[in-house]
Amino acid sequence: MTDPDWIAVDWGTTHLRGWAMADDGSVLASATSDRGMGQLAPSEFEPALLDLIKDWRTDVPVIACGMVGSRQGWVEAPYAAVPSPPLGAGRAVAMTQTPGLSVHVIPGLKQLDPADVMRGEETQIAGFLAMNPGWDGVLCLPGTHTKWAHVSAGEVVSFQTFMTGDLFAAISGHTVLRHSVGGDGWDEGAFDAALSDAMAHPARLAARMFSLRADGLLHGLGAPEARARLSALLIGAELAAARPYWLGQNIGVIGAGSLAALYIRALAAQGAPAVQANGTAVTIAGLIAARNRIKETS
Amino acid sequence: MTDPDWIAVDWGTTHLRGWAMADDGSVLASATSDRGMGQLAPSEFEPALLDLIKDWRTDVPVIACGMVGSRQGWVEAPYAAVPSPPLGAGRAVAMTQTPGLSVHVIPGLKQLDPADVMRGEETQIAGFLAMNPGWDGVLCLPGTHTKWAHVSAGEVVSFQTFMTGDLFAAISGHTVLRHSVGGDGWDEGAFDAALSDAMAHPARLAARMFSLRADGLLHGLGAPEARARLSALLIGAELAAARPYWLGQNIGVIGAGSLAALYIRALAAQGAPAVQANGTAVTIAGLIAARNRIKETS
Repeated sequence: MTDPDWIAVDWGTTHLRGWAMADDGSVLASATSDRGMGQLAPSEFEPALLDLIKDWRTDVPVIACGMVGSRQGWVEAPYAAVPSPPLGAGRAVAMTQTPGLSVHVIPGLKQLDPADVMRGEETQIAGFLAMNPGWDGVLCLPGTHTKWAHVSAGEVVSFQTFMTGDLFAAISGHTVLRHSVGGDGWDEGAFDAALSDAMAHPARLAARMFSLRADGLLHGLGAPEARARLSALLIGAELAAARPYWLGQNIGVIGAGSLAALYIRALAAQGAPAVQANGTAVTIAGLIAARNRIKETS
Repeated sequence: MTDPDWIAVDWGTTHLRGWAMADDGSVLASATSDRGMGQLAPSEFEPALLDLIKDWRTDVPVIACGMVGSRQGWVEAPYAAVPSPPLGAGRAVAMTQTPGLSVHVIPGLKQLDPADVMRGEETQIAGFLAMNPGWDGVLCLPGTHTKWAHVSAGEVVSFQTFMTGDLFAAISGHTVLRHSVGGDGWDEGAFDAALSDAMAHPARLAARMFSLRADGLLHGLGAPEARARLSALLIGAELAAARPYWLGQNIGVIGAGSLAALYIRALAAQGAPAVQANGTAVTIAGLIAARNRIKETS
């Protein structure tokens, strides 16, 4: 039986991850599950969490971030409006049936104009700042819905969401391009060339897309090149529209996978070097920061 | 028993339509089916056609356009390269089991650079020109894959395909926006405003999309307005990228439905009035033109 002082949880739409934590911030054990918020009814929230941490003591505080705090989540943790510290809005506490188990949920951030929201990324931003005290600049958090956040003096000043990953999945799975971009292959040179073109002419995105299909029919364009070109078209359109965020700024990219590497490669091609941070590390660091705040205020 | 001199057929990916024709071009009967090319194996082509025309004489020539002539179709009718008359490449003839039944398939058009292809629209363009002799200008054929074609002196000079309809379906059905744009509602004012914004700033397409979701969460944006704004974003991006086609040109929009009406409304807002042609009428006129050419050359 693992004996944590508290438990850190990242509970998103598609995943549930937990860490058994000691008071000094060390990780005693970890667990993951595919029981994301998106597939659970309210009556299943507590059983899903208890199943995740079944080998751990449960009469300890749980600190959770992500969609667990949305209106359809376990308990709604209302958004804090930017400008705001990333952990600026206290917390919500979920009702539980388990003696001693308390679940504290971190609120997300909202921006009223242009309208935007985040849940989970605010915790990663807090973790990045805890690991890099005094850092000012722009953080890019690539994912299904990539976030760009302008961070200054410990606050999120503004942010913007791009649906680039969601669009790539929908276009490559549910349009005529599914015939052109199948498989896992990747052509790095095609990515670089298409990215350069997309950055120079972002308004031509709509005109470029069908040519992936036609180039396959007429000129034998292969799937690895078509995949890379589609990705470059979408990331290029995002980077062009996000230029006011990153131009001339310190840039940090949060994430360790191939998607984060694509953003770093693309930014470098624009003469904008970025530092990279491990996504899991900053999530845990953010949950530790939230835990420390709760201890101070309770 | 209907007794046609020949049979006109439009056979696309998702539909099969036929008309029993008299030699003078009058329509004696019509039939439609959902047995498009996309769902048929090669052995099913002839039975599907015979089922469609089961109340008609079948020992007559059939003139067919659309995906029936693709590599995966009944018989491959190789593309003609533009610049070319819309019916510029002769025809392919399919093998049949039915005595007296001959199936003549109209080839599509290809453009080598930028790579592009069409199958079916060339017949509509031929029909439009048959109904409007000597017409020069740009034809817009809205659909899943909207085509813009520059027509001069009876030839298709160049053309470009935009996946706008395909993208709208994939985004509204398979991204997070499916929660925001459901139903059939439509807000015309929201379409006009978002279109104007998209035309003025086409490079911001990627930045605008997630705000449809966030505006719903934060400001109660309704589905009819979100649907109209998404459509305007995509059509606006297309019109901006297609501006070299339509600016200062005669414009014809082929189609009678609500999608064609959106294009005409959007073009009018840009000071570009367009004439509208009925899609079925120009398809039949194009098949008649193809029939006349075959009679002349056989």
